[in-house]
Amino acid sequence: METIRHSLAHILAAAVQELYPGTKFGIGPAIENGFYYDFEFSEIKIVNPKSKILNPKQIQNSKFQIPKLEDLPRIEKKMKELIKNNIKFKKKIVSKKEAEKIFKNQPYKLELIKELPGKKATIYQSGNFIDLCRGPHVESTLQLHSGQAKEIIDSFKLTKIAGAYWKGDENNPMLTRIYGLGFLTKEELNEYISRQKEAEKRDHRVLGQKLELFMFNEEIGAGLPLWMPKGVILRKVIENYLYQELTEQGYQWIISPHIGKLDLWKSSGHWELYREDMYSPIDIEGEKYELKPMNCPFHVKIYQTKIHSYKELPLKYAEFGTVYRYERSGVLHGLTRVRGFTQDDAHIFCAPEQVSQELTKLLEYGLKNLKAFGFKNFNIYLATRPEKYAGAEKGWQKATSSLKYVLEKSKLKYQLDPGGGVFYGPKIDVKVKDSLGREWQCITIQFDFNLPERFDINYIDQKGRKQRVIMIHRALIGSFERFIGVLLEHYGGALPLWLSPEQIWLVPVGSRHKKYAKEIGKRLCANSLRVKVKDENETVSKKIREGETQKIPYLLVVGDKEEKNKSVRVRTKGGDIGEVKLDKFIKDVLSKLNSRN
Amino acid sequence: METIRHSLAHILAAAVQELYPGTKFGIGPAIENGFYYDFEFSEIKIVNPKSKILNPKQIQNSKFQIPKLEDLPRIEKKMKELIKNNIKFKKKIVSKKEAEKIFKNQPYKLELIKELPGKKATIYQSGNFIDLCRGPHVESTLQLHSGQAKEIIDSFKLTKIAGAYWKGDENNPMLTRIYGLGFLTKEELNEYISRQKEAEKRDHRVLGQKLELFMFNEEIGAGLPLWMPKGVILRKVIENYLYQELTEQGYQWIISPHIGKLDLWKSSGHWELYREDMYSPIDIEGEKYELKPMNCPFHVKIYQTKIHSYKELPLKYAEFGTVYRYERSGVLHGLTRVRGFTQDDAHIFCAPEQVSQELTKLLEYGLKNLKAFGFKNFNIYLATRPEKYAGAEKGWQKATSSLKYVLEKSKLKYQLDPGGGVFYGPKIDVKVKDSLGREWQCITIQFDFNLPERFDINYIDQKGRKQRVIMIHRALIGSFERFIGVLLEHYGGALPLWLSPEQIWLVPVGSRHKKYAKEIGKRLCANSLRVKVKDENETVSKKIREGETQKIPYLLVVGDKEEKNKSVRVRTKGGDIGEVKLDKFIKDVLSKLNSRN
Repeated sequence: METIRHSLAHILAAAVQELYPGTKFGIGPAIENGFYYDFEFSEIKIVNPKSKILNPKQIQNSKFQIPKLEDLPRIEKKMKELIKNNIKFKKKIVSKKEAEKIFKNQPYKLELIKELPGKKATIYQSGNFIDLCRGPHVESTLQLHSGQAKEIIDSFKLTKIAGAYWKGDENNPMLTRIYGLGFLTKEELNEYISRQKEAEKRDHRVLGQKLELFMFNEEIGAGLPLWMPKGVILRKVIENYLYQELTEQGYQWIISPHIGKLDLWKSSGHWELYREDMYSPIDIEGEKYELKPMNCPFHVKIYQTKIHSYKELPLKYAEFGTVYRYERSGVLHGLTRVRGFTQDDAHIFCAPEQVSQELTKLLEYGLKNLKAFGFKNFNIYLATRPEKYAGAEKGWQKATSSLKYVLEKSKLKYQLDPGGGVFYGPKIDVKVKDSLGREWQCITIQFDFNLPERFDINYIDQKGRKQRVIMIHRALIGSFERFIGVLLEHYGGALPLWLSPEQIWLVPVGSRHKKYAKEIGKRLCANSLRVKVKDENETVSKKIREGETQKIPYLLVVGDKEEKNKSVRVRTKGGDIGEVKLDKFIKDVLSKLNSRN
Repeated sequence: METIRHSLAHILAAAVQELYPGTKFGIGPAIENGFYYDFEFSEIKIVNPKSKILNPKQIQNSKFQIPKLEDLPRIEKKMKELIKNNIKFKKKIVSKKEAEKIFKNQPYKLELIKELPGKKATIYQSGNFIDLCRGPHVESTLQLHSGQAKEIIDSFKLTKIAGAYWKGDENNPMLTRIYGLGFLTKEELNEYISRQKEAEKRDHRVLGQKLELFMFNEEIGAGLPLWMPKGVILRKVIENYLYQELTEQGYQWIISPHIGKLDLWKSSGHWELYREDMYSPIDIEGEKYELKPMNCPFHVKIYQTKIHSYKELPLKYAEFGTVYRYERSGVLHGLTRVRGFTQDDAHIFCAPEQVSQELTKLLEYGLKNLKAFGFKNFNIYLATRPEKYAGAEKGWQKATSSLKYVLEKSKLKYQLDPGGGVFYGPKIDVKVKDSLGREWQCITIQFDFNLPERFDINYIDQKGRKQRVIMIHRALIGSFERFIGVLLEHYGGALPLWLSPEQIWLVPVGSRHKKYAKEIGKRLCANSLRVKVKDENETVSKKIREGETQKIPYLLVVGDKEEKNKSVRVRTKGGDIGEVKLDKFIKDVLSKLNSRN
């Protein structure tokens, strides 16, 4: 398929060459699900097609014959014509000198030729279009409308146009990139397009704004989310749930500051091995402080306030700790890739003989926890030693084996992620698969034999001897930010009842029903339900539309009949389910809430 | 009294001159509750008393005849002798030249003479001791053992010795400071001393460590508290209480990041007028970011996401926001003066006609809230425009009048705090008086006409016109850090039941009662009580002593009799209150809890 996609990129370039003479060509690879080609379109009415390289501003200001979205069907049509002409893809190896001659009007190709190792260059000719390319390609476009790929003519599609800096470097000129999708069958193409549309509808950045959950602001800074009132409710529901569950499991809670001396991060090894993820220091009275990228050293310092006996182990410290890690502004993405986020962090200090039991419990509960949020499918990874690491080879081997042992004992399928561990130890990562089949990292269970060594943390064993303690880092949801982003995409914003910031809207039919609506509202609130009485002077249908847009689980309409019968008319996302006695409604909703649906 | 205290300082110096010949004299003022004098004690066996000025290290290394704590009674005795001699305080104005002659062996006095303006110097002679001093003093020490001050001989006391840099500058030599207390009556002195002892016992820094509530760590940084597990429980009880109360009052919650672009703080005016309290910037991709000293600009940015109608006002945004403010390391003090702290912050956006009602409600609820935590006495301050300020004179006047109006309408006694306002507006501060009568700042209600102007924030009034919104900042407890510090000192660590991190300890008499203790433990936990079963192999009396030290509200001892009777033997801080049926105990405790006792 990659070969076909790559050949489609060449055909796109060939079509552009015919329709837009004088165009300069960048590169055109196959990508996931399709292909693209980068072009520099030349000025209209070219007399001498000798082009100069323009910077983005100049491009904006000059009259270029750059195609627009509405021109793509014309290019697509030309591509289909070319395909039907059964054009051959002829490979030829030429000297660099020859290549330079062939591409004498193509400055980008000339640049690429210069960078080629050796003295030769491979070129592909297909019809009038020649490209500098290593291939491989289909033999002829005949292959694209016969045999296995016979549907290609209907199963590729040009989709968008975007600016792209030559070689991805913002100091280079901006070229015009045309993207295409390419699949073997029309069915696959359509399926992909509709999945994309669904994903766009579920984009948590769009939903977050529409549902007023969170926001970003350029004046505050990229990647620094602000939680709005409804978002805080959602976040607190999750926080309270985890707090209660983990407290019952014997976790103890900690709150640590957001900055700490740079020297602490030197002692911990972060400055040496994790500096790329850290921000520049703050100076306080001549000493340097760092925004915390992790909570670990603080938890270690609390562990160190006492001598711990084996009887106290495992000792589990948990914190909803907000950490700050450097991400390039280009890779930031809504809540799922941010610069400041709150981890559901914990550190488990235990004796070596407790390790496998603790790991097993962690994995088991972690998966159960994700299921409580509605995720059913997971991929599990065992990530091993990365290039930069702390600690001895032997420790890594031993820790990796314990993780492996636990996965196998628990009969969990897993994949290896070679080199994917953190600098301080190997880890197990669990990624959930959302309703569109996309993977998201949630659980992480990480060994740490760096900090116990560096901070010399111990416990006293049964025989009164000092022993090095084992430290396990773990997160169950990862961070509130990413997890809520994932939840929104998984549910397309229609969160389950227990997670919905607003659970019930009461819609009085007329002004005279407002009193009854408010009475019901009070009763529902007294049952700890999150309720809003919609008493604005607007039509019932407008309120219902708004409630549906806002993904409110229950819209209760009350008029004369409902008031008389002490009932409500219930609408859910499943539709109108008619009149229900208020008492029964409350009972049903509370039972649904208790089962976290 | 100040005159008497000042004269006592001179007598202290006179006594030192007799007991430690060759001593060099610094200064000796009256201070709150007493006096001190700074001395440079000379080397033992002085042949030629020509002294040189030594640095602290040299002082440490050389053999000085510096008095120790146990020498103070000897000095005190000498002072009493001098007082009984009815020494006169003779004031004399001399030329600087004459003064230099008199103090030729006193380098510190010579330095002071040089700094005197004019050509004259005032000196006081009392017996053999002459001091450079403007006075005033008592006429004679006769006044110190007769008349109004006749008890002085028994109502002053030398209390401690400390090092103090000459003129408070660490580049100067370190002198020895002797402190004394001085009151008119012996009763006052004793009362002060016992109050001091009580305050020391109640020192929240000591209690915080003993009760394992919080900690500081030099490697992490001064003024950056770490909350330990029991401290987090206490903090969460307060947080949850405030969250519930304020949510019922219509507050909406926000979570904002801990850093924001420096430009934001320039727009807000903080960089111009609050910079001294802020830390040095962090660089991210060439842009500067600041740790937040306040949450306000973030709340403003959330307010700005929509156009607000008058119908939505007052709009109340609340946040438990952790802010970072610069404090010199020298002034840091436990939890009550820190560098990072979590405010119970809120901003109320309202229309001008809503201001006085909102302020009244705020004050009323704020006082009620403090009473819920056990504080009964308050001092209220109206703080007016400081030297550095933003906004127009007229706005300040108007806002100050509204605050005054509200205080007077509510019939609350208050004091003026001239110039005590924040740069952006005047404020009302409420300070609680703790069980030792000390004042602590809790409630603050602050006008802000800076941010609404700077960020141009508005609402739409009844007639559809854009109007400037009024912004009120407020905190009810101030910060969790300071408030918990104050609570600990107020209660001497013996927190009320509802606030105690551990409410009940179950102490089985023997091993065979552990099962019953655990059963009860489960039942109490199921009633949301915080319970610990003390099943270690230690004696009952040891566990009870420990429980008392840990200020546990209820110690329940269970043995054969209790198991048979389904009862518990209850000990509170009031003492042993005997056997109580378990059912009754649970009922009583829950009722106590509900009334927040």
